[in-house]
Amino acid sequence: MSRNLDELQAAQRTFAQERDWGQFHTPKNLASALAVEAAELLEHFQWLTEEQSRTLPDDKRVQVGEEIADVLLYLLQLSDKLQIDVMEAAWRKIGLNAEKYPVDRSKGSIRKYSDI
Amino acid sequence: MSRNLDELQAAQRTFAQERDWGQFHTPKNLASALAVEAAELLEHFQWLTEEQSRTLPDDKRVQVGEEIADVLLYLLQLSDKLQIDVMEAAWRKIGLNAEKYPVDRSKGSIRKYSDI
Amino acid sequence: MSRNLDELQAAQRTFAQERDWGQFHTPKNLASALAVEAAELLEHFQWLTEEQSRTLPDDKRVQVGEEIADVLLYLLQLSDKLQIDVMEAAWRKIGLNAEKYPVDRSKGSIRKYSDI
Amino acid sequence: MSRNLDELQAAQRTFAQERDWGQFHTPKNLASALAVEAAELLEHFQWLTEEQSRTLPDDKRVQVGEEIADVLLYLLQLSDKLQIDVMEAAWRKIGLNAEKYPVDRSKGSIRKYSDI
Repeated sequence: MSRNLDELQAAQRTFAQERDWGQFHTPKNLASALAVEAAELLEHFQWLTEEQSRTLPDDKRVQVGEEIADVLLYLLQLSDKLQIDVMEAAWRKIGLNAEKYPVDRSKGSIRKYSDI
Repeated sequence: MSRNLDELQAAQRTFAQERDWGQFHTPKNLASALAVEAAELLEHFQWLTEEQSRTLPDDKRVQVGEEIADVLLYLLQLSDKLQIDVMEAAWRKIGLNAEKYPVDRSKGSIRKYSDI
Repeated sequence: MSRNLDELQAAQRTFAQERDWGQFHTPKNLASALAVEAAELLEHFQWLTEEQSRTLPDDKRVQVGEEIADVLLYLLQLSDKLQIDVMEAAWRKIGLNAEKYPVDRSKGSIRKYSDI
Repeated sequence: MSRNLDELQAAQRTFAQERDWGQFHTPKNLASALAVEAAELLEHFQWLTEEQSRTLPDDKRVQVGEEIADVLLYLLQLSDKLQIDVMEAAWRKIGLNAEKYPVDRSKGSIRKYSDI
């Protein structure tokens, strides 16, 4: 198993090409599919207490893992179509977040940066 | 910039720890935040035609990149809390999808596997 | 203020027609916009404890009311385009739910009906 | 069938009380469930063209109607818990939208009001 995100993205690209799914996979549709998968992930947690959500039974953890995978795969496909480098975007975002949420003013508080 | 997902995950973990956000970051809440970010990503596309969504203007592409980053960062934090190996889950999912959507029966059609 | 859902739906229809928004308001796009508004509603609650979510401060309650209104208005527009009678659909769904979740087997437990 | 939203809301309240679901139905959890149902609604449209979304086959239209009903029922339950009058909120929102999107500047364009 490669731990390289580019190889995972390439494998998913091949998967879609083999099935001729490019016609469906517009960025608009992929963004929609991603939101649907994110909601399926959320569904597993919706009636749990926060405490229960920390200690999922094994079968549930496997199911949650599959939804996490679905979200990641759509995210890579969307980035691929838009030629956005997802790793670069994420590292830049961590930098931006560090500016928006300075440690001294954000410690122990998770208000939106515009309300800090 | 490291292209390694584990290092990105570790950087995000440190970011949250420095701000003492562990109390908010239950898996339930992270799944919720992830779904909210996925919808913010979708919002950029909601009134575009599929064709327009393929050719975003530059400023829009930057904004979309930031939302993609937000989704990925929450995905990594959620996986971290649940001790789910996101790369392993994604590679396994590609394998499962290959079984659910055999090329000969899925070519050019994107119906749900249960309807194939 | 009319308490009649049909009049609210008609007012919203006129609102969109006056702005010539029919071209954007396909069922697909309206479903997307509705999901985005539902996530904006969720965003208000994502870092609150369940207990805090029961007792919102006044300004927050007003904001939540606006998001609830947005969801309802998109729901009415979508139903309008698809010629679905939303009241009829809702009453029928309550009946279906009563069958799926019999009181004696659902009391105090909120598992999915397929797992009961 | 009553066309009165208050009666529908009361029926849903009774339904939940009979099953002792108040313990699960915090505003936070209801907002989450609502977002999940909105995504299930969206799922029906995600691979359709905008044109196809206008002319759903009958069986699909029935399924979509059920998802619309689910969204409405959670919306009523959430409003009920927060003591928000959903009709009043919706009429007020139509008024606010008329200010945010004046006909002369919004005609044929659906940009966010802050970009007008």
